[in-house]
Amino acid sequence: MSLTNATPLQVAQAARLGSRKLAVLSTEERNATLTAIHAALAEGKEEVLAANAKDLDAANKAAEGGTLSASLVKRLDLGKAGKYEDMLQGILDVRDLPDPINQTTAKTLLDDNLILSRITCPIGVLLIIFEARPEVIANISALAIKSGNAAILKGGRESSNSFAAIASIISRSLATTAVPSDCLQLVQTHDVIADLLKQDTYIDLCIPRGGNKLVRYVKDSTSIPVLGHADGICSTYLCADYPAEKATKIILDAKTSYPAGCNALEQLVVEERALSTTLPIVAEALLQRGVSLRCDNTALLALKGKLDPHSAALLQESGPQDFDTEFLDYILAIKTVASVHEAIAHINAHGSHHTDAILTLDDVTAKTFLAAVDSSSVYWNTSTRMADGQRYGFGTEVGISTNKIHSRGPVGLDGLTIYKWVLVGDAQVSAEYGAGGRLWKHERLPVGDGDGMCRDEEEREVLRKFRTGRK
Amino acid sequence: MSLTNATPLQVAQAARLGSRKLAVLSTEERNATLTAIHAALAEGKEEVLAANAKDLDAANKAAEGGTLSASLVKRLDLGKAGKYEDMLQGILDVRDLPDPINQTTAKTLLDDNLILSRITCPIGVLLIIFEARPEVIANISALAIKSGNAAILKGGRESSNSFAAIASIISRSLATTAVPSDCLQLVQTHDVIADLLKQDTYIDLCIPRGGNKLVRYVKDSTSIPVLGHADGICSTYLCADYPAEKATKIILDAKTSYPAGCNALEQLVVEERALSTTLPIVAEALLQRGVSLRCDNTALLALKGKLDPHSAALLQESGPQDFDTEFLDYILAIKTVASVHEAIAHINAHGSHHTDAILTLDDVTAKTFLAAVDSSSVYWNTSTRMADGQRYGFGTEVGISTNKIHSRGPVGLDGLTIYKWVLVGDAQVSAEYGAGGRLWKHERLPVGDGDGMCRDEEEREVLRKFRTGRK
Repeated sequence: MSLTNATPLQVAQAARLGSRKLAVLSTEERNATLTAIHAALAEGKEEVLAANAKDLDAANKAAEGGTLSASLVKRLDLGKAGKYEDMLQGILDVRDLPDPINQTTAKTLLDDNLILSRITCPIGVLLIIFEARPEVIANISALAIKSGNAAILKGGRESSNSFAAIASIISRSLATTAVPSDCLQLVQTHDVIADLLKQDTYIDLCIPRGGNKLVRYVKDSTSIPVLGHADGICSTYLCADYPAEKATKIILDAKTSYPAGCNALEQLVVEERALSTTLPIVAEALLQRGVSLRCDNTALLALKGKLDPHSAALLQESGPQDFDTEFLDYILAIKTVASVHEAIAHINAHGSHHTDAILTLDDVTAKTFLAAVDSSSVYWNTSTRMADGQRYGFGTEVGISTNKIHSRGPVGLDGLTIYKWVLVGDAQVSAEYGAGGRLWKHERLPVGDGDGMCRDEEEREVLRKFRTGRK
Repeated sequence: MSLTNATPLQVAQAARLGSRKLAVLSTEERNATLTAIHAALAEGKEEVLAANAKDLDAANKAAEGGTLSASLVKRLDLGKAGKYEDMLQGILDVRDLPDPINQTTAKTLLDDNLILSRITCPIGVLLIIFEARPEVIANISALAIKSGNAAILKGGRESSNSFAAIASIISRSLATTAVPSDCLQLVQTHDVIADLLKQDTYIDLCIPRGGNKLVRYVKDSTSIPVLGHADGICSTYLCADYPAEKATKIILDAKTSYPAGCNALEQLVVEERALSTTLPIVAEALLQRGVSLRCDNTALLALKGKLDPHSAALLQESGPQDFDTEFLDYILAIKTVASVHEAIAHINAHGSHHTDAILTLDDVTAKTFLAAVDSSSVYWNTSTRMADGQRYGFGTEVGISTNKIHSRGPVGLDGLTIYKWVLVGDAQVSAEYGAGGRLWKHERLPVGDGDGMCRDEEEREVLRKFRTGRK
């Protein structure tokens, strides 16, 4: 890794060249690199924390001056008990995941001695732009190297000293490994982003990790494919048949366990028949936790007079914009609908296709909702806060995608890979087939039969994963 | 299908609404629609051919006037023996492919009664822009409906009468099916393209099928993801150890079986040691077929004097631009390299990442090439012309992608799908896990165990496909 003063073009070209070398390293070489980075960061803890203290100092002053939020300062702090160790463990966790590349995921006998294989490989060069949290650099570096991708990392201004220290340590440790140092490059100055976003010849995928403003800016400024989500307007549709106690538990978790999360609940869609039964119980619990309820007229009418008068101020009439807003706060919009079809139409029109849930005991209603809601994650009787790579069992995630192509929902290592088609023959040519008289065999082969492309151990692993349902 | 006078915004919005209904139709309903379209087009053959005759008439006049190429006129002709029947058969072939959507491709037990499934689904709304060949409309319509996607189709001006006739017939047949007619919309006027490319709220994926100029225009004009390839600069690396007879057969097929194809050979990269042995034999065969050879100095020197004097005019010195050009003609650039590493570097720098081949008997050299060449298809001892969805066993293709994300190489039905994550629980919430004390189970389940989301028959099919190596 280098903390570079090169131009954006030079950075991108060097990453591209480095990526070609990284792509052909063995599983062992990539894993050994993660071991080396882990050891170096463990040893360099004092150095990193000293740099982090400088960032914290500056951030605290900015917070006092009112130019930085207290929660952002908190996210900067690498010295908090267990945080540095979690960062270190994260590197080993990624190392110990199955290798996502060089896996044969399909094989077809086109003709005798003419075998087509689909083999996973790295995407190439990633541009990752993230805000604040300095530990992300270690996490992303581990994911990139594990998946054989070069990465250009642009961190937030507030953690520049922490980034520089981590980058310098990773750089020193890379020098002892098979991974070229240009495969991880840190750029610090904000003014290079616009030029980096123009390097579509050398950069294959851009992943912005941060707020709506950052993501929209990136999407609007580049022809490089962008993986991510601008908004997390998550909804839950509460049916009248669902027990109030369970509904309350789920909705409280979805709204209040981390309101700043992109998977936090922003809209409660309520079946009309639940207005006077379940909704008052759920609403009371939300109000007691300090959640403002922005209700449409029907819901407001149903709730008025039924709630603790202390909470009256938190019961509000919704404006039209409330159903298209990511509050990221203790605010919830409440919308009344007559049926699951109306709920589906509302969510497809006003949600952000991130994560949406239905609470019901009815099988048919649930399946209608799960099939028709066009979101990356759709849930039945659980909290939208479940949308997370670690919770999904991916080990870790690079972000959550609301894209309609490539990778959708929480994106783990698989989302950083693509495949190539490998065809091995013995001088067969296209003109021999079709009008040429020869017929294609097109016989699906089990992944695991030797075609000379994969080592036996790898093939067994692939087969095992296919048999247990893993991609 | 409607031949529409609506605005681009209205077209896109209607397609989006239609797509929501199409997405939840059963396999049987989508297949029955393809049966109905097939029957209607079979019955309407005379009507279509009469319209096609008008296009041909206009095209022949344009060709005589020199404003249209003869090969384009040929591609317009639907009356050529067997062509209409091939178009009809293509619809049934697509119908009979396995359903690409509603397939469970992964399943994880997150905790007791908390099961996460990855289920394939349509992308949504496709915008497909294609040139000339009118039969493509039937092919693309079949692929879109089979995969549950709505499609907006923009055809070439030259075949406007044929398109209108086919569109009108498909439209009438859709009225008898479960597929909303807005799911297939034909737009004819060229000036709507720019506005359609702005509808990124309603259109999910754009597939341009045509020449370099069209594809580049589309890529540069939209923030909708684009699937396709601008260039097909395919290379073959000829090693000195490969038998001349097989090399000649493969290279002749790659260059001359269809020089206008995107998978045709444009660059022959030759190992230095083959210059005086294999190359003269291969070159002689190419020259006899009328292929101009644009050679670098070393290759030119090696070939001069060794070839039939009649071919002398076809033996030319290359200019620097010849190694970055898609000739689509009887022209081949020849580049000399010292090693496979030099060949890889040349191809990665000058190719278009479409399809590249190596001809060698050496295992290690071949595997080095296959691993390091960063192209969507990489071949060992066969012709680059093999890069084609039908030849790969996909039944048919929507095009060939050189993208680094989503779908790479020939794109079949799978490339028109994405997935959603479906999580089914019983009131578990996020705060119970991690710091909340509960542990995740993260147990991979075999795809095929019932989770209530898939019918048994479907699950068996998915399991069968996984077991035989299909995605």
